Formats: sequence, C-alpha cells, structure tokens
Amino acid sequence: MKGVRAIVLAACVCGTVPVGAAPADPTPPHSLMPVPAAVTFGDGALAIDAGFDVAVAGARDARVDAAAARLVARLSAETGIPMRRTGAKPALSIEYGRAAPGVQGAIEDESYALVVTPQHARLTAQTPYGVLRGIETFLQLVQAGPAGFVVPAVTIQDRPRFPWRGLLMDVCRHWMPVEVVKRNLDAMAAVKLNVLHWHLSEDQGFRVESRQYPRLHQMGSDGLYYTQDQIRDVVAYARERGIRVVPEFDMPGHTTAWFVGYPELASAPGPYEIERRWGVFRPTMDPTRESVYRFLDGLLREMAALFPDPYFHIGGDEVEGHQWEENTEIAAFKATRGMKTNADLQAYFNRRVLALLQKLGKKMIGWDEVFHPDLPRDTVVQSWRGADSLAEGAARGFQGILSAGYYLDYLRPASAHYAVDPLGGKAAELPDDAKARILGGEACMWAEYVTAETVDSRIWPRAAAFAERMWSPAEVADVTEMYRRMDIVSQRLEFAGVRHRSQSRVMLQRVAGYQPLEALEVLADAVEPLGIGGRSRATTYTSATPFNRFVDAVIPDNPRVREFASLVDGFLADPRRAANRAAIEARLGEWRSQQAALQAHLSGSALLQELGPVSKDLAEVAAIGLFAIRALVEGVPNQPAPQLAVLEAAAKPKAEVTLAVVPAVRKLVEATGRPAEK
Amino acid sequence: MKGVRAIVLAACVCGTVPVGAAPADPTPPHSLMPVPAAVTFGDGALAIDAGFDVAVAGARDARVDAAAARLVARLSAETGIPMRRTGAKPALSIEYGRAAPGVQGAIEDESYALVVTPQHARLTAQTPYGVLRGIETFLQLVQAGPAGFVVPAVTIQDRPRFPWRGLLMDVCRHWMPVEVVKRNLDAMAAVKLNVLHWHLSEDQGFRVESRQYPRLHQMGSDGLYYTQDQIRDVVAYARERGIRVVPEFDMPGHTTAWFVGYPELASAPGPYEIERRWGVFRPTMDPTRESVYRFLDGLLREMAALFPDPYFHIGGDEVEGHQWEENTEIAAFKATRGMKTNADLQAYFNRRVLALLQKLGKKMIGWDEVFHPDLPRDTVVQSWRGADSLAEGAARGFQGILSAGYYLDYLRPASAHYAVDPLGGKAAELPDDAKARILGGEACMWAEYVTAETVDSRIWPRAAAFAERMWSPAEVADVTEMYRRMDIVSQRLEFAGVRHRSQSRVMLQRVAGYQPLEALEVLADAVEPLGIGGRSRATTYTSATPFNRFVDAVIPDNPRVREFASLVDGFLADPRRAANRAAIEARLGEWRSQQAALQAHLSGSALLQELGPVSKDLAEVAAIGLFAIRALVEGVPNQPAPQLAVLEAAAKPKAEVTLAVVPAVRKLVEATGRPAEK
Repeated sequence: MKGVRAIVLAACVCGTVPVGAAPADPTPPHSLMPVPAAVTFGDGALAIDAGFDVAVAGARDARVDAAAARLVARLSAETGIPMRRTGAKPALSIEYGRAAPGVQGAIEDESYALVVTPQHARLTAQTPYGVLRGIETFLQLVQAGPAGFVVPAVTIQDRPRFPWRGLLMDVCRHWMPVEVVKRNLDAMAAVKLNVLHWHLSEDQGFRVESRQYPRLHQMGSDGLYYTQDQIRDVVAYARERGIRVVPEFDMPGHTTAWFVGYPELASAPGPYEIERRWGVFRPTMDPTRESVYRFLDGLLREMAALFPDPYFHIGGDEVEGHQWEENTEIAAFKATRGMKTNADLQAYFNRRVLALLQKLGKKMIGWDEVFHPDLPRDTVVQSWRGADSLAEGAARGFQGILSAGYYLDYLRPASAHYAVDPLGGKAAELPDDAKARILGGEACMWAEYVTAETVDSRIWPRAAAFAERMWSPAEVADVTEMYRRMDIVSQRLEFAGVRHRSQSRVMLQRVAGYQPLEALEVLADAVEPLGIGGRSRATTYTSATPFNRFVDAVIPDNPRVREFASLVDGFLADPRRAANRAAIEARLGEWRSQQAALQAHLSGSALLQELGPVSKDLAEVAAIGLFAIRALVEGVPNQPAPQLAVLEAAAKPKAEVTLAVVPAVRKLVEATGRPAEK
Repeated sequence: MKGVRAIVLAACVCGTVPVGAAPADPTPPHSLMPVPAAVTFGDGALAIDAGFDVAVAGARDARVDAAAARLVARLSAETGIPMRRTGAKPALSIEYGRAAPGVQGAIEDESYALVVTPQHARLTAQTPYGVLRGIETFLQLVQAGPAGFVVPAVTIQDRPRFPWRGLLMDVCRHWMPVEVVKRNLDAMAAVKLNVLHWHLSEDQGFRVESRQYPRLHQMGSDGLYYTQDQIRDVVAYARERGIRVVPEFDMPGHTTAWFVGYPELASAPGPYEIERRWGVFRPTMDPTRESVYRFLDGLLREMAALFPDPYFHIGGDEVEGHQWEENTEIAAFKATRGMKTNADLQAYFNRRVLALLQKLGKKMIGWDEVFHPDLPRDTVVQSWRGADSLAEGAARGFQGILSAGYYLDYLRPASAHYAVDPLGGKAAELPDDAKARILGGEACMWAEYVTAETVDSRIWPRAAAFAERMWSPAEVADVTEMYRRMDIVSQRLEFAGVRHRSQSRVMLQRVAGYQPLEALEVLADAVEPLGIGGRSRATTYTSATPFNRFVDAVIPDNPRVREFASLVDGFLADPRRAANRAAIEARLGEWRSQQAALQAHLSGSALLQELGPVSKDLAEVAAIGLFAIRALVEGVPNQPAPQLAVLEAAAKPKAEVTLAVVPAVRKLVEATGRPAEK
C-alpha cells in the first residue's frame, strides 16, 4: 500500500475545509470518492472546454467506445459546456490492453492509471473495467477554476481493495420501475460499485416474467414485473457500466408470491394470496417433493439464460419452519432420512438446488443460513448476521461477502457503514489466503419502507461511503474528510441521474400543499427520518400504506444537521465564545420562528397535522439553545438539569422523525454547567 | 359567460391568500389553471385513497383508456398513495359521446362537465378531447385535507375560449432531445395547451431525418436530429394527450443548414456551413429555379406523411434579400415577371409551395410575411409583428393566431403575457364572424438563449398564464390571483415531469462548485435573468457558448422577488409601519451578509467571479433598505436623492442578471421622502 501516504498527503494539500469556512487555497477542494490507491497532485491544470474530445486506442471493446461517448456527454451535461466531437487533438487519450470476455467475472483487473498534465490526460488500463473506473475518476476531478473548468494535474495509480462491491436492490416489497434501477446503476458506476444484487422474488411479489411458469408473474406481482426484454435491457445497461447483475430468487422461504399461482409448491395447502404486510411469514416450499425440484429445474434454466452472471443467488434466509413442522409427510421425510432439524432439511434443499445450478454452470450464493460444510468451496456466503460468521466461513475455505453493517434501510449515518470493514474483527486475524476469500460486501436497500420515489435518497449519498470502504485502502478512514467529499459527490450524483436531493424538495412541497412553506424546510433541516427499526414499531405498515409523509421527504444523515453540530463544536472550542456564534444564533432563530409559521397550516392538512409536536419541540430546543449561548457568552453559571430534561423529551422520535439537532444543543447546555474558562 | 361570476365568487371563497399570511379558512386555496368557464364549489369533498379507480363508459377511443390509466398513475405519483386498480366501485366515472377521427382537427369540441360530490365524481364530454381536458382539471383539484387527500365537491362546466392554444419549441438554435419535448408535452397537457408548433429547421440546424434527401440531416445537424421513428413517437405521444403537432420548415430564408448538403438550392453559390451565430442571415432559397420546387415537392411529401396534422408551417419570416439582389438571374426573373419587390418574389415562392402543400391535402400556415391577398382563406397567418396585423388579416377573411406578446424568450413576467388578448386592440372592434377567424395564439420559445437544460424554466410556469389567457373567459384577469395559482401549478408541474425548479437548484450547485453556498441562493432569490434583448447586447453568443452561468440557473419572474415586493407593499400600506417589518428586515439582513460569504469564493471559480458586482450591489441595496425601514419606523425625515442614485446604478444589469428587488426597495426609500402620516 505504497500509495497511501501520498493520498493522505494529497488530501491535506487540497485542504480539509471546515463547513462554512473559506478555504485557505482558492482552488476548490478535490472530491475523489472512493479515494484512489495512490494519488499525487501536480502543478497546473488541464482546461476543459467546448473542444474537449476523447480518443481510444488499443484493444477494441464496444463498451469502451460507448463509455468514451458517454464521458463527453456527461462532461458536457455536468459543466454545461456544449461539446461537439470533432476528433481534433483529443484532450484525453484512453489506452487499454485487452478486450474482456462477454461475461464479467467476479474477479477482474479493474486497475488503471491516470496522468493529467496541463496539456493532456492519459488513461491506461489492462481491461475495459479499468477504463470504466478511470473515466469516473476523471469526471470527479473536473472542477470550476478561475479561468473555467479544469482537471488539476495529477498522477493516479488505482485499483480496488475488494473485487465484489455490491448494492442490493429489493424490488419486491415496493416495486421499482426500470428507470429507477437504471439511474441507480449510473450512480453505482459513478462510485465504482460493480455488482447489482437484484432481489427479485419475495412474499410480496415475483417480479420477473416467466414464460415457463407464467402464473408466477401474472398472479404473483399485481402486474408489477419486468418483462424478459426489460431484464435483458437492464443487464446490458449494467454490463456497459462494468456492473454485474446477480439475480436473487429467494427460496425456500419468502415465497408466498410464488404460491399464488403455484400452491402445489408449498408445504401447506393453498390458496395463497400475495402478502401485503412486512415480516417473516409461514409459506415455505416443500423440499420433500420431487415435483418442486422439477419446477425449479425449469425455472432456474429459464432464469439462468436471462442472467449471464456466473453467480446465482438462492436467498435461503429466514426459513420460518411452521409449515414444515405441521406437515406430517415432511416430518416423516425428515425422520426417514435422519434429519434432526429444519436446518438439516434446508441443507438438503440447498444441495438439490445447488445440483440444478451446477448443471447450468452457475455458482451458488446464499445468505448466512445456506452455510454448510458440504457445499463446494466456490459457493459464496453473504453474511447478514455479522462479520464473525463471515470470518468463520473464510477460515473453512468458503468465499464470503459482508452485508452485516451495510443495511441502508436502518438509515444510519454513513460514518457507521464507513467504520465497518469486511476484514475487521475476527477476519483481521485470518491468514492471508483466508482473507483473500472475503470478496467484499454489499450494501442492502431493503424496500419495506422505501418506494420508487424515496429510494434514491435512502441509497445516496450514503452508499458512496460504503463504496469507498470497498474500494479504497483500509487506511483511508478520516470521517470528517469522508463527509466533506461525500457532500460534494452527493450534489454531483444528481447529474448522474439519481434524484435523492431534488425529489426530496418536491416531496416537501407536496407535504406543504404546494404552497411556499419555508418553515417546513427549516424543520426538515433539523430532523432525520427513522429507519426500519423505528418505523416498524411506530405503526403497522402494509404495501398499501402511502410513503408521502414528512418522514419520507426528509433525508437521513442530514448534512444540515452535521453542519450545525460542527458549528457548535467550533463555538465550544473557542474560549472567547465568538466562533460561529452568529451562524448558530441565526439557525436557532429560524427554529424558534418556524413554529408560528407552521401552526397556521397544520390543521388543514393530514400531511402537516402530525408535525405539531415536532415543530413545538424544535422551537423549545431553540429557546434552550439561545439561552445556553447567552449564558456561555456572558459566563453566567447555570444549573442545566431542567433544560437537559426538556431536551431528552424532545429527542424522542415523533411523527417517525428524530430532532437530530438535539445532541448538539445538549452540548451547549452541558457546557453551561461547567465552570467558565476565563 | 354566465359562469364567470360563479368563478370569481369561488376564488373569493377559497381565499386569495397573501404570500406568507395564514389563510382565514384552513382549506388550502384552489389552484385551477386555466380557470374553467363555470365553476361552483359545493359542500364536502371526495376522498382520494388507495382504493381510487376510474371507469370509462360510452364511446371507445383508446386514448381515453390510456388517459384513465395515466390519471391513476399520476394521482398515485402526486399524492404518494399506492393505487392498485381493482375495478371495484370506481370513484370517478368518465362518459363521452363519440370517438374522434384519427387526426385531431384545428377546431374540436373540447368541452366537458365535471361534477364531484363527497360520494363520487363524474366527468362527461362529447369527445375524447373534452375527457382529456377534464382529467387535468380533476387532477388540479386534488389537495391535502385534514383527513387525507380529497377533491372538493364542485360542479364545473368548461370549454376553451380559443381552439388554437400553442407552444412553439425551437429545437434548432439549441438541440432539444426527445425526452425534453415529451416532458413539455406533458406540461402543456396539464394546462390544456393543444398545439406543439415544432420549429424543425433553421440556419443552425435541420433536425429531422430525411430519407429522400439524407444530406439535410447528415450534413445540416451535427448529428443532432430526430429519426423518423422518433418523430412518429413524439407525434403519437402528443396525440395521446390531445395535442396537435404542427411542423415548421422555415423557408425560403433561415435555411443555411439545408444548403450545407444541398448548396444548389441557394440563391448564391456554396459551399455553406452550419450557422453558429444568432441573427438573420443571407442564405436564401432560389425561388426562380424549378429544381428547387422539385426538391421541395419531394421533401414536403415525405414530411407530410410524417406529420398528420392538417396544417403545415412554412415559416416565411425574415427573408433578408441580399442574395436575391446580388443574383442577376433572379433579378432578371423578377423583371420578366414584373415583380417590383422581394416581397413579390416571396409571394410567388409561397404560392408555389402552397400548391405543393395543397396537393398533399395540407393547409398552409406562415408568419406575418406570408400574408397576401391571393392566399386561400383557410391559410393561417401567425402574427409575430403585432395584434393589429392579426386583426387586419381577420378582417380580410384570413384565419390567424397571435404570437406577438407571447415571446417567452424575452423572459418578461407572466403578467405581461397574461395582459395580451388575441381579441384585444383592433380585434376587439371586429364583427363577430371576423373575430371567429382569430383562432388563438402560440407562446414562442425561441432557443438562442436556452438549452435543453434551461428550457423548462424558461417556459414554465409562465406558459401556464398564457394558457389561461387562451382557455379561460376574458374576464378572468386578476393578476394577483393568477400569480397565486401559477405558483401552485408551478410546483405541481414538477410532478408532470418538467424540471423548471429542481434543475435550477442543481445548476446553482454547479455554479457553487458543488459546495454548500447558501449565499448564492440568497443572491439567486433577489435577481432575474436577462432575456434575449439584454443578452444579445451583452456579449456575442454562438452555439458553442456554455449556458452554465448564474444567469442561466436563476429563474425569470422570480416568485421570491414578487414575494418581497408584496411584503413591502403591505408594510407601506400600514400606517403603523409594523406589517411585515420583521420579514422584510430578515430578507434585507440576508442580502447584506451574502456578500462576505460569497467574497471568499469568487476568485477561485470562473462561474462565480462575475458575481462580485451583483453581490456587492445587493449588499448596498440591503443597507439602503434597512436604513429606509428605520427612517420610516422612527419617522425620521430623509432626503432620498443619494440613495435613489445608488439604487439606480444597482438596477443596471450586471453579469446578465437584474437585481429585480430594487424597485421594491426604491418604494421604501421614496416613502422616506414623504411626510410621515402620524
């Protein structure tokens, strides 16, 4: 990891700019994310103007030519500079050594080198994958300079730390149309993720057209499924971006939707209906019947042809067991074969499915529960239970990827995911060959509490921090610096096509009844939405529940909340009690006045009504904060206990959002209880 | 116009809510735009929930079924409520009398009646067009009530005032991809516009694939043209929404791009290059050569088949004349035929082209210049010169549509377009039969100073005010009330697909270098961009000039500017000098402090640099405003002359934007010079 020191140095040279402050250097800070393995900035910059063009040399892979054309189009869109490809004296040359086979493998050479001088940029790579990754780096380097857009002079040697860098999209709990998947593929490519784990079947829906067994999608999807043409289109779209598509058909549990059209697959008699609640449900395939395997043989054959990836995900999680235990024939089957537990029966099922997949040339991947010593060693185990089980599998010779710690649906801060390392914990103690079996990880966007409208803001920009953990050297771990870059990448991702910020504002407008309601924006800037844990406890959700509320419009890991916390830290660190004071008081003033402005509108709209207590709490928090600032500035001693009690109550979730600014105000109040440092 | 009184009454009942104030009635105000011919609100409201469905009865037109499906999808998207069409007890019934012929005529019955009770909604119409218009009204009625989304009980009888309600999109000066055209068709449909005037050829580009004469698009478009499949797709998309597509192929001038591939059509020898500047240029077709008409015969035949509309627009404007005068053969031709002027020669050309169009069953439409007594009376003259020429044409028996006063590229306020009536001025004195020949109007979005990225915000929401002038009774003319509704419709149009607000924010982020730069938003909220007049004088633009500057990101007819003006009016109307004072001072305070925040960033970015003087001016304006408020509140006499001089300088455009808040501040300052009213 020779390059690491150069990176850290470079990060310092560019300046870690505190929010709200002016940079010492007039050059805007760089915003590479993931941080490359080795980067050294030089002097000067390459100008980006209307004459920009790209030339490609070396091997011939249609993907690279398409990517070069896309680069110019995206550069034009991001800079707003019209670019007409004239072929004259290209500013960027791309060279690569070899074309890649039609199907992307789980482990490919994705390394690249990018050298930019004030005269020219050169991107070299062994494979098309390296070119694709390097193009994204080039785009992230573009910035507005004093004389126009430029790419700073730089030398980058880059390669990923892990080969498997995935995003799971659940399109079953809530349906995600093709365009949603595509724009997320674009965003994935922008941060160098390379696996779309497409969770395609569930209790709540079977989302792929099956010509072999058409009742699967016809009866199991409410009409919300991908046609086979659409599947091929998405797979091709992903391939163009160097992204593998790993389909998941979860079995033998999570299969209610299959049984609506084919009840004979289940372990208990039908009829079945599409499940409309969230949770773990009883319907489970009957692993004792040969007809089930004949059905799966046909289906897997059909699906294996649609999805060219070498891996095929069979789920295998959360088999609930009731149906197996209540079925006397299944009990007899277990007894006959000496199976003691449902896990034994599931292992039998997995071996049978494995045989079907092997016949189709596929390797199997499944969740933790599929782990069994009998499995072939090229089976990949995806750990949702924890890093320790991942390490255990790797020690026994299995490949593994980590998802525990990367569940986006909990809406935890990016820093939490950033801190989770597939090679942390017990894995850190593994020998190198076992470590090499830990292929990477996948961020999981389970869709119980997101819809096609909100999913972008629940994935982005937090998944960019995960992507950096997957790609960059382990030593790249400064959280403040990560957030600085993530906030910039977040803005740029809107140009990649995801609408995680802009749609949030449109949704706030809906909550406001399409009237100008700045008070609602003030409130939105002070809160964070609850994740799956909090929301599932708050009320009973079903697939008919609207996701149009304030909680759905506001964003997790709110940068405006982080900004306020950073202002408070700066204020408290200043013994003169002057730093950031005006900015903090301005913010607190907005919080105080939003209540009166909102109050008048609350009763008229069901979407606003629930915000009364949140709005009132924020106004009280503001009053406490303003009092604390005054006490600190004037050095007046304070007994903070009653104020802390009010803050504690205000910190409790209401309307499924949390007043995320409370901890920063608490710091102010706590400081009033300490002797002044005069 | 029996219904007008009912409308006005309804508008009063709903409350004309001043910006920033609480409504007297907790029900949000209604936001129908265009206002229907007759509307009477009743008691109660129809609930809109997950069970919402539509039933269609009567005639069978596939468009109506598609529109019903789209209605449910849009209602679901706008409310955020998942809607699964179960067919059980539909909340909305649609009935219509007859299917319509395949091709929409220039005059169709677009009337409809909509009756909503707390139990049910019923939409009836004679034709599919009436149904399409009524569906848009229904969608605009949806609002959030205390118990969830509702449509208030209402009885509406509606029909348009003018049959021809168009939007011209110039896709030649700047290229507009298919998706840009489509989302604008959606927005047009939302405000009941029914003609897309597609300006497809220009000096700067020939934008349609011609199989007959492929060098037209191959050499005349930089590769930026619509394939014939795309044309058919857009025409079908428009047809589904009850929108006609009238193609314009401008001739004999504005034809440089044609001559790149076919120089033999021109009046002077080639070679020609695509024109990259804006203006009126010399290249003009040679109207004396038979080969030109053979060429046009072939092309018009091909294009007539692509565009089924009964009308075909031949442009005919701004024939510059130099090439004709310098060509001795053309001079001889004129002399031989006794033609005195170039206008005579152009009239000859028009008659020849008319004959070609008539052979194809098309009626001709052209700009003012085509007007000639010989033309058949079903020729439509589109007036860009003024309402008087429109009235003159109508008096002589010609059909006409008005575009003078509706040029969106001047970026004038919506109120200016709203005040222009096709039947105003001389037309008001015409006899009824002549009035009836005035078919309506078209708003024109010429594209010299807009791009695919900025065009939405240059059309919307101002075109909605134009649409109301075209559709609603002439008596609907209250500007304050229009703006209240337009601001709401504007927000909702983002759900229809145009990105006039959200992309503006993304563009501001680009100007800010993707850093949080609230100061830039404060500045953006105080300015308006210059239109074509100001920009063309500011610097020399070409098709290679980027449109990525602050001026391109900020929006015309800025609602935040209007809001400030309204606050000032309220303050000045209050003899106690208390109304809105805090809000005005808060705004002025932001203006004052933005300068320091921006200053630190200006030198680092070419996109920010030019804003120094604007930022400084705004801070000075703020200081003057704050001083004036204090003087007014304290009753201190003031000699306003020096302050007014500063304001006058600040009001001058800089960086191609205007500090649009200056007039309101001037009002404050002027008031300080008047004796206090104590």
